[in-house]
Formats: sequence, structure tokens, C-alpha cells
Amino acid sequence: MHRRSSLALILAVLVTTPALATEGMWQPAQLPAIAADLKAAGLELDPHDLTDLTGPTMGAIVSLGFCTASFVSPQGLIVTNHHCAYGAIQYNSTAERNLIKNGFLARRFEEELPGDPNLRVYVTEEIRDVTREINARVKPDMDGYARFEAIDRAEKELVARCEKPGGLRCSVSAFYGGASYQLIRQREIRDVRLVYAPAGAIGKFGGDVDNWMWPRHTGDFSFLRAYVGKDGKSAAYSKDNVPYKPAHVLPVNAEGVQAGDFVMVTGYPGRTNRYRRAAEVADAIDWSYPVQQQIVTDILGIIDVEGRRDPEVAVKYASSVASFNNVLKNYGGQLEGLGRADAAATKRAREAELDAWLSRQGAEEAALRADITALDALLSGQRATRDRDLLLGYLQRTQLYSAAYSVYRLAIERDKPAIERESGYQPRDEARIEGNLRQMERRGDPATDARILAYVLKRYQQLPAAQRVAALDQWLGADAAQIDAKVGALYAGSALGGTDARLAGLKLSRKQIEASDDAAYRLIVALMPDLLRIERERKTRAGEEMKLRPRYMQAMIAFNESQGRAVYPDANSSLRLTYGKVQGLKKDGAEFFPFTTLEGIVAKTTGVDPFDTPEKVVERIRAKDYGRYANPAIGSVPVDFLADLDITGGNSGSPTLDARGRLVGLAFDGVWESVSADWLFNPALTRSIQVDVRYMLWVMDKVDGASNLLQEMGVR
Amino acid sequence: MHRRSSLALILAVLVTTPALATEGMWQPAQLPAIAADLKAAGLELDPHDLTDLTGPTMGAIVSLGFCTASFVSPQGLIVTNHHCAYGAIQYNSTAERNLIKNGFLARRFEEELPGDPNLRVYVTEEIRDVTREINARVKPDMDGYARFEAIDRAEKELVARCEKPGGLRCSVSAFYGGASYQLIRQREIRDVRLVYAPAGAIGKFGGDVDNWMWPRHTGDFSFLRAYVGKDGKSAAYSKDNVPYKPAHVLPVNAEGVQAGDFVMVTGYPGRTNRYRRAAEVADAIDWSYPVQQQIVTDILGIIDVEGRRDPEVAVKYASSVASFNNVLKNYGGQLEGLGRADAAATKRAREAELDAWLSRQGAEEAALRADITALDALLSGQRATRDRDLLLGYLQRTQLYSAAYSVYRLAIERDKPAIERESGYQPRDEARIEGNLRQMERRGDPATDARILAYVLKRYQQLPAAQRVAALDQWLGADAAQIDAKVGALYAGSALGGTDARLAGLKLSRKQIEASDDAAYRLIVALMPDLLRIERERKTRAGEEMKLRPRYMQAMIAFNESQGRAVYPDANSSLRLTYGKVQGLKKDGAEFFPFTTLEGIVAKTTGVDPFDTPEKVVERIRAKDYGRYANPAIGSVPVDFLADLDITGGNSGSPTLDARGRLVGLAFDGVWESVSADWLFNPALTRSIQVDVRYMLWVMDKVDGASNLLQEMGVR
Repeated sequence: MHRRSSLALILAVLVTTPALATEGMWQPAQLPAIAADLKAAGLELDPHDLTDLTGPTMGAIVSLGFCTASFVSPQGLIVTNHHCAYGAIQYNSTAERNLIKNGFLARRFEEELPGDPNLRVYVTEEIRDVTREINARVKPDMDGYARFEAIDRAEKELVARCEKPGGLRCSVSAFYGGASYQLIRQREIRDVRLVYAPAGAIGKFGGDVDNWMWPRHTGDFSFLRAYVGKDGKSAAYSKDNVPYKPAHVLPVNAEGVQAGDFVMVTGYPGRTNRYRRAAEVADAIDWSYPVQQQIVTDILGIIDVEGRRDPEVAVKYASSVASFNNVLKNYGGQLEGLGRADAAATKRAREAELDAWLSRQGAEEAALRADITALDALLSGQRATRDRDLLLGYLQRTQLYSAAYSVYRLAIERDKPAIERESGYQPRDEARIEGNLRQMERRGDPATDARILAYVLKRYQQLPAAQRVAALDQWLGADAAQIDAKVGALYAGSALGGTDARLAGLKLSRKQIEASDDAAYRLIVALMPDLLRIERERKTRAGEEMKLRPRYMQAMIAFNESQGRAVYPDANSSLRLTYGKVQGLKKDGAEFFPFTTLEGIVAKTTGVDPFDTPEKVVERIRAKDYGRYANPAIGSVPVDFLADLDITGGNSGSPTLDARGRLVGLAFDGVWESVSADWLFNPALTRSIQVDVRYMLWVMDKVDGASNLLQEMGVR
Repeated sequence: MHRRSSLALILAVLVTTPALATEGMWQPAQLPAIAADLKAAGLELDPHDLTDLTGPTMGAIVSLGFCTASFVSPQGLIVTNHHCAYGAIQYNSTAERNLIKNGFLARRFEEELPGDPNLRVYVTEEIRDVTREINARVKPDMDGYARFEAIDRAEKELVARCEKPGGLRCSVSAFYGGASYQLIRQREIRDVRLVYAPAGAIGKFGGDVDNWMWPRHTGDFSFLRAYVGKDGKSAAYSKDNVPYKPAHVLPVNAEGVQAGDFVMVTGYPGRTNRYRRAAEVADAIDWSYPVQQQIVTDILGIIDVEGRRDPEVAVKYASSVASFNNVLKNYGGQLEGLGRADAAATKRAREAELDAWLSRQGAEEAALRADITALDALLSGQRATRDRDLLLGYLQRTQLYSAAYSVYRLAIERDKPAIERESGYQPRDEARIEGNLRQMERRGDPATDARILAYVLKRYQQLPAAQRVAALDQWLGADAAQIDAKVGALYAGSALGGTDARLAGLKLSRKQIEASDDAAYRLIVALMPDLLRIERERKTRAGEEMKLRPRYMQAMIAFNESQGRAVYPDANSSLRLTYGKVQGLKKDGAEFFPFTTLEGIVAKTTGVDPFDTPEKVVERIRAKDYGRYANPAIGSVPVDFLADLDITGGNSGSPTLDARGRLVGLAFDGVWESVSADWLFNPALTRSIQVDVRYMLWVMDKVDGASNLLQEMGVR
């Protein structure tokens, strides 16, 4: 059980008119506050019941860390996207037994395959407001750094206390820019097995070509199962483990939904920027996205050149390249969407509206105006070193540099009491750090890494004096033309290109590293004082921001309250609910309908990846073997459907539920126009894409004969 | 005036039922044969009148060589696509006066700007059937090579005689794979001036992003004017020239068309492969497109690497890169479309149908079956050396090699009487060869060229023994690892990287070149005997094909005749007419409407190229200043529209005409599904994209104030 956040209490009293249609990633605790809207939209459940994290609906929703999933049987059966189970599918694939290509079905529990070592299921058990506990540590006269440290320390203590019983992962999340802090306690299930995945030509149908596109025909679903020890506690993989008994199981509505029907999605959206200041939006459009487009394009160019030199390099960087390309496509979509919405101007107009309203209120609100001005000044101050800070971030993404950095930083932090150690370098983080150091050998190539490092340093060298880092300048020397030689010497003079040396570094003390003559350690040791100073400056600014941004959000909430509108917090990977309805999309010269059909799969099929539908699927479709899964309104089995739900990355795999909380699909993507919705939600253009439960059941029944799972889910 | 081709005579008698809806690129002379279909579709003109090349409609249609255009005023005013006039716009652009970006409008004749030196207007004056004259040279017992030479010689003589009066360009084109030969006589107008181009943000709106896409909002139109000497004859640019008086001028229908209306396009489609054998389609899918995708991707990779080394290289190869990327996108579209249509299987089924029909006919048709079998065997024989032949083609696209080749080949041919010189090396070709040798300096870089050559040679080295070229093997030597060194020595040892040396080469005799110690000449001189042998083998096969393919086409025509269907010849850059109607496109999950609107431009605008609509345009649209150009059915000014017309590359700029032959738009593109229509026309998915005349007039009137042109076109 959980308690309501203080802001949810605020919100509970103010709702009088409907919230903006479809926009909103609501916390469970907020739902009673928008009960009237939910009911008007068609929800047949009691919103109060949805506040119970271990009760019906919410008790079935889990996080995979990077995706969402849900329980669909009392024996811990979990459904999520194919692309969310991809790691587990890939981990179990070999050249002889290619599960990515052929799919996989365990007909009995014993046939289920252990997931990849990093696969976890997180069951949220409690969300507790800790705003008062955090704020009690903060004194009004604290400067930014002291404030940051006080809050950071309070969070670490809360997390440490929370995780004490074991088998749990706890975190403190800031909501509304820090107006509210909430401690989230999750059970961490470590034995997660692969149960069923359709063939890749179903689960990834359309691939990158169709990514962000509609019409869509992807069967993006797979099944996992959560296991725990016989004592019911989280445990590492063991044959003796037993299926986890979830608090709740989603019922399946095999009839699915129709156009216009109420739907909702519950899950763990990662990050949105809906309440950013206009200047922040303008920075993203004018600086951050275009500059990073350039950097990523250049890095991809380097990897491409090196990959042509040596095919093994191409293999090692394949997943980096895929992710960089995805990022590039995303930046392009952001810029296109933000440009089309004239987002900076739209935000400026909204700010002017807010300011005008505040200026008509009393003295308390006048103080808010001053804080908003101070926030803008603070943000503007960050611009002074933004190029440096961006490049330091890219340095951390090169391997030799980041290996030396983590080893040395960990050694520094290990000298401190656990609670004082920097986040990310606490005892709970050591296994992850070691894993990262280990897998560098599979994901990097020293020569390529050196060229990327040289590239980032050359960009650094073009920075104006005010953005320079003294120790780095000193290392680089006066001769700008010498960067390649410097970098060459760095790699030649360091053993950290080797896995053994990196792992051996974890056993070195701070003093030993500082005395080492390894070129990479020497660089990092020389840089560290400056890096720590820059980190402290960043924390100081963050501490200021933690004071000012809640004030801005307070103004926003008050303004919206005056207009009877509820305010939801930006996505922060915590549990949310969004609702709306099944509907298509109209554009000039085109209309997109809410459902695609089986026949559309055949029409798209070319026989070549990513449109290489298995013969059996084509044959069943041609035979119109719809079974009981057809939607009479469209005269076929629906494959994917559109809804105006407000989702983002992290929502992948989220169950799409009908008005009674029954599973009717899985969210897995949005249309192209949704990319920029992270900043500005346009109800006319933003659409989520779901795989329809009827297609999932049709594939399970007619293609893969997964009768065991259908039975387990109670479908027949 | 022209005479009907013999095939048109055949066709005239056989049409009883409608031809396949919308498919068909008909020769003017064929139109009476499909008069009933044209009338049923809605044409209000007499199809017989459309056979008069100098009469109404056809008299107004001209070729630019690579695009189509049409006369729209008695003073030689020509309308075509913006992308067809692009060379002229670019040629007149400077950093200070950027016509690509800002557009251009001459308000008086004197302000018009001379086009780029290569810009020509070709007015087709006569199409004359010369099948009998060609075939009279062919004797039944000739082998392939003799047949090829006899036909080639006959064509050259016809062309030479035809071009004698001067100011003309003549050519003999084969139709139906050589079942019919036609001599085409065109007046060549050499003084062509730029009159009007809208801003690039209108004319290229959507750019590469929207290429092949719908919904579309491109204002792809521009105006040129044809000038001739005071004596009415073709002349090079001179201030004293006068506007050309066209035989006919297209009237403008400022009301435009509505969904469902009859439309037709007349123009010069470049090349289609509709009658290729199934095995040829399979070759394209399994070999030609995928292999070339790989080669082009690799060459682009080399250019990318070199461009990163030296930005000037990137500039020099910019247009090659654009064209390679376009080709890659095209190959992708071909493969996608052919795969979706299961094209090879579809073709095989049609062939089986044809064969079954032939087997039910008399002895004459039995002979056709044998010839078809022989054709398939011939095509299959070509496969034995296809990799070699493809790579020799790519060798010709490297600069040093092709420079040495053309200089030496020209010297060889110059020793022969003009009529015996190889096509492409006749006196009429010398200026073009010189131009090519000259512009290599602006379009190539020796180091990059060397890497591409080495790449092609490395691919060559992987060919099996049967596909090797002895002289090339000898030059390469036994050590496979030495290619880079060999190529390095070739470039180091040749002066032909320099323009002066290349041009000086044109003055050398065959003997002088053969005695030269320039490494490139020595390579080509060594290779030439083998290359000429391969050329002779190719001509031998072509001569065989010239005998067999007409037989196959004869069978196809007879088969279609038996079903009352007319047959049109594959596109070959000669004048054609296609007709159909204004209509959208339905796909699973989406419908595309036939018209886009002004408001769609604003919705797409991001402020950044290619979606950076000029402020004035946005303002006029926001003000709903439609003038008299709105289409009441869609409540706005239509921008682009879809029709089911059968067009391909070369049709760009073609006028789209209504039932009475009035201008209602300009064809400029097709939807993505149309890419593969060059092989297989799918009436459900193939759509041409036109810019609507109402948008053209709206831009001219409301944005650019081109009242002089509106008046000249008689619009007001």
C-alpha cells in the first residue's frame, strides 16, 4: 500500500473541468483527482482502486528497468514487447538454434530458458511521499552545493534503509522538478525466463523501415516468466526456483476494442520535458539537437571507416551503431516536430500567459515571479559552459578514458564511508561497474576508440578560453596539430585496452593508481581535480535548480488550478497511467485508420527482411483462417491499432487496457509526429501504436500453436 | 506530319474491349486504335487529332533531353518542373544572387537569363516508321554480329541524312524490342532562357525527405523561353535572337480538375521493362539490384572517407553522391515493389499463359515458341559473363580509366570514314567528349578516383576464371595483394589526371597514343584488343536478340490481340501519351486523398530546409487569400494531386491535361509504390504526382506577382 503524495492532495481538490484530452501521464495516486474525467472518458473501474499498487490492475504492472511488462497468469507469466524480451531471445540464440529468426515456444515450464544475466523484473510495492523528510534536511540559507549534498544524503539514507531487507530496489524520485520527492520500493526478481517469442519476421516485422511509422503490422510481443526461491524470496536463477505469484493478474479481453473505445496504458515512461522553460526548448532546437546530430554523425563516420578497415570492428560496434542511428532519427524527429509546432514560440506564449496571471495575483505569487526569473538566469548561466559539458560527456563515452575514470573514481570513493560515496560508486554499484569494464572487449576496438577520442578532443580544442579545462589543456600541450600523436601515445602507453588490466584496476588503491605510470591513469589522475571541481559546480547549480524549479512548478500548478486543470508530473521512469481512445489520425492529403489487418501483412511482404513473413502466416491469411479473432467492423483480424495515449520510451511493453482493465494490446511505438511530444503534446497528431491482443492470440493459436499459454491465460 | 507505324496499323484493327485501366504509354500514332477506351475514359478531343505531332496538343509538347516541357504561349514560353530547370537556375546563381534559394522572375524579355550551356529544347517534328528500310539490310542467314552491324549502319545512314539540313537532331528508336524501328526528327533549339522560378522553398519543398512520398506539397514548376535566330532557325544564344513560335500552345484551365476527372500526360518517358522475360525480372531481383546496391554503397563509403579527409573532395563529388544516393533509394524501391508483387512468379505465370495459348495455335505460332525458347537461352548465356560486364561498366565510371579510354577510342575511330565510326565516337559526338574530359576536374579527385578503381579491380579479382579478361589479368599480375600498389603506380605514372593533358590527348593520333609511355594510355592500349573483342561479343548477342525479341513481342501482341487488348511499346524516350483519372490510393490502415492543400504546407513547415516556407507564403495562407484558385470541393487551393497515370523518369515536367487538352498541372513524381512499376504496373498502387495548375497560378499571382506571365498565358 502507498500513501498519496502531497501534490496529489493538492490536485484532489481542484479538478472541476476536464483535463486536456489524452495528454497526461498520471501517477496512480492522482487518479481519484481526475476521476470525473476518467469516468467521462469511459473508465468503468473505480479510480480509487487504481491507487492500490498491489491491487487489481496496478498489481499486475511491472518494470523491466528499460521497458514495461505485466502479469497475465497466477504463475508469474509475463507479457511484454518482443523488442523488450530481445536480450533474452538473443542470449539464447546460437547459429544452430536461431531464436531471433525462428522464435521460441516452451510447451512446459522445464523448457523455459534463463534470460540474459541483466534481465530483471521490478514489482513496485510502495510509493511513499518523502518530501517532508527530504526538505527537513534543507535549510533556507544553504547555498546550492550544500542543498544538493543535503538532499543527496537524505536520499541515500532513505534508499539504504529501504533496501535493507534484501531483494528490493529502492529509489527516490523527484516529481515536478523537486516539488515532491517519492521513495519507490520495488521487489527485484532476478530469475526471469524466456517462455515464448514469435518468429522475428512477426515480432520485428517492418524493422527499422517501419519504425515510428503507420500503417504498421508488427507482432511486437513475447512472454517471460518470473521465478523466485521456494521461500518466495528473490533469488538468482536456480532449477529449484518456483514461479512467482503476482499480487494481481490482468484478465485478457479476447474480443479486443473498437474505434472510439476507451483505452488506457499503465507503465513506466522514462522521461519527458513538458514543463521545460521556453529557453530550454529553444536550446534544444538551436543547440543541443543540431550539435549532437553533428557529433553523432561524425562518430558514426569514424566507426564506418574503421569497420571497413576491419569487419570485426563493424561487428563490435554494431549495437552502438544501431543505437546512434536510432538517436539520430530521434533528433531528426524532434527537430521536425518542434519546428512544425513552432515550439519555442508556443512555450513563450504560455509563459507570458502564466506571467500575466501571476502579476494579477497577490504578494505570494509575486515572489514566484522573482524565482522564475532567477530560474531563467540560472539556466542561462549553464549555457556558458554547455559545449564543454557536452564534450566531457562524450569523453565519458570513449572506452579507455571511461575505464580509467571509473577505476580511479571508484578507488577514490571506496575510501569513504558507504553512505558518503558518490551515487553510482556505492557498494551496490560495484557489480555493474565490473560488468561494464568486462564487456568493453566485446563492444569496442582500441584503434576506433582512439579515433573517436581524438575527434572529441579536436572539438574540445575549438572551445573558447572560458570553456577550457586547465588540466586537459596542459595534457594536450600547445601544439594543436599534435592531438593524434598525443592520443596515439595514450593508447600505446596504457594497458587498459585489455580486460585483465581493467579488472585488475579494481583491486588497486587510490594511491597505487596515482603512482601508476599507465598513461590512461596518468591522464585521469591529472584531470580529476578539475573534473571534481566541474562536478561540484554542476551540483551547485543543481542545488539552486532544486530550489527554483519547484517554485516555477508551484506557479504552473496554481495557474492551472485557477483554470480547473490538473497537472501531472513529467515522466521519470515511475509508474503512470495515461488514458484516451482508439482513434486514427488525419493529415492534409491522407487519413490513417485506427486498425491494420492481416491482409496488410501480405501486401507488405517482400520475402526479404524486414518484410519476410513466414510462409505459414501468409497461407493462414490467404485462407482467411481468422478463428474467433476477427474484428467484424474491419472484416479481418486486427494487427496493430492507434490510440491517442500519452506514452514515451519506457512504456514499451505496457499493457493497453480496456475500460474494465482487461488486456487488449501492448503499446510498442508512436507515430512519427509523436517523437517531439516529449516536449510538446499535440493531441491532433500524437498517436501511440499498439499490437492488438487479437493478433497476439491469432499468432499463438493459428501460427505457433501455443495452446498451453492460451490456456494458462484463461483464453480458452 | 508523320505516318503510322506498321504496328499501329496492326493495333488499329484489334481493339474490341478496354485496355488495362490506366496502364499504357501510348505512341501518338496508336491513339486512334484505342479511341473507344479514350472516349470511355472521358477524353473530349478526337484521338485522330492527337496523332498530328505539329497539331493541337502534341505540337506544344517538347523534350529537354532528360525531362519534358510544353509551350504555353505563342512567344515560346515553356513550362516545366523546377527540378528540370534546375541546371539553368543553378548556372545563373551566385553567392550574392542565389536564384536557387530566392527564385527569379524576369518581368521583361530582356531580363531573361541564358540557360546553362547544355540546355536544349527538342521539338519533335516527325516520327517515321523505317522498319522496312532497316530490315531490308538484314539477310536471314546473317549471324548476330553481321545483323547488328547491318542495322547499326542503316540507322547511322538514316540519321546522317535526316540531320543534313542542320538544326535538327535525329535518331532511330527500336520499339517492341526491334519489331518496329522509327526515325524521330527533332528541331534542336539551343537558345533557351530562364524566365521564372519560384523560391527553392516552394519549388523543392520537401526535398529528399518527401521524394517519392505522398502527401506532397512541392511547387515543382518553372518557366523557360525558347529563342531562335531572326530567320526562324536554331541558333546559339544571341541577344538578337527572337522568341520561337511554336506550332501549338497549351491552353490553361485555371479551374483545374476534380477527383475522378479524366487526365492525360504527354511526354518523353525514358525506359520501362514491362515486357522483359521472367528470368530477366528474377535476375534484377536476385542479382542486378542487390549487387549494385552493394557496389554503390561501397563506392559511397569510399567517397565519404575521402570527403572527410578533404572537404574539397566532398564538394567535387556532391552531385555524384546525390545521384548515387538516388540510385540506391531507387534500387531499394524496386526490390521492395518487385518483392511485394512477387514479380518473378507473376511474370512466370503470364509466360505460362502465353505459352499455353501459343501451343493451341497453328504452325506459325509454334515457330514463335521456338524463338522464345531461343531468346531465353540467349539471355541465360549472357549470365555467364554478367559480373565481368557489370564491373567493366563501373571501370568506365572511374575517371582516369575512362579518360584514357575515350581519348584512345576516339583516335581509333577517327581513322575510319564518319559513317563507320562507332556510335558515340562520331564527329557529332566530339564536342560532348571534350566537354566530359574538361569537366572531370570539377567532378573528380585523383586519390578518390584511385580508391574507387582499386575497389572495382578487387571485385574483379574475385571473378571466376571464365569471366577474366586476359590483358587485365596480365596487367594486375599474379600478386593479388598488389592492387593498391598497381593503382598507385598507374596514377603516379599518368598525366591524364590533369585537364590539359586530357585535352591534349584529343590531338594525338592512334599511333602516338600507342607509343606513349603514359601509364593510363599503356593500360588502355594493352586492354583495348580484349575490350573490343568483348564489345564484338556483346554486339553479336545484341544482333541475336534483335532477331529473337521481336518474335517474342509478336507472340505477345498476337496473344493480347486474341483477348482484344492493345499493346503499347516499352518506354524509350520517345513521345507518349498516358491517360487515367484523378484519384487517391487506399492501403491497409490508410487512405491517401487525391489533393493536398495550402494548409498542409503550413502544417509541414519547420522553418528549416527542406520545410522552410517563405514568410510571405505562410502569411497569405493564414489569411486564406485563395484568390480565384480554390477548389470548392476541398475548401482551399489544391497544391499537388494524385492520378493513376503511367509515367516514369523522363516524364518529369510533362503537362497534365484535362479532357479538352488544357493544362491542369505538371507531372513531377510518383508514389513509392510506383518505383517498381517500370517492371510491373499495379493499377491499385501506382500513382503519379502532379503539381496543380491552381497552385502554380496562386504562387505566380499571390506570392511572386508574375502578372506578365499570367497575362502572356491568357489566364487574365
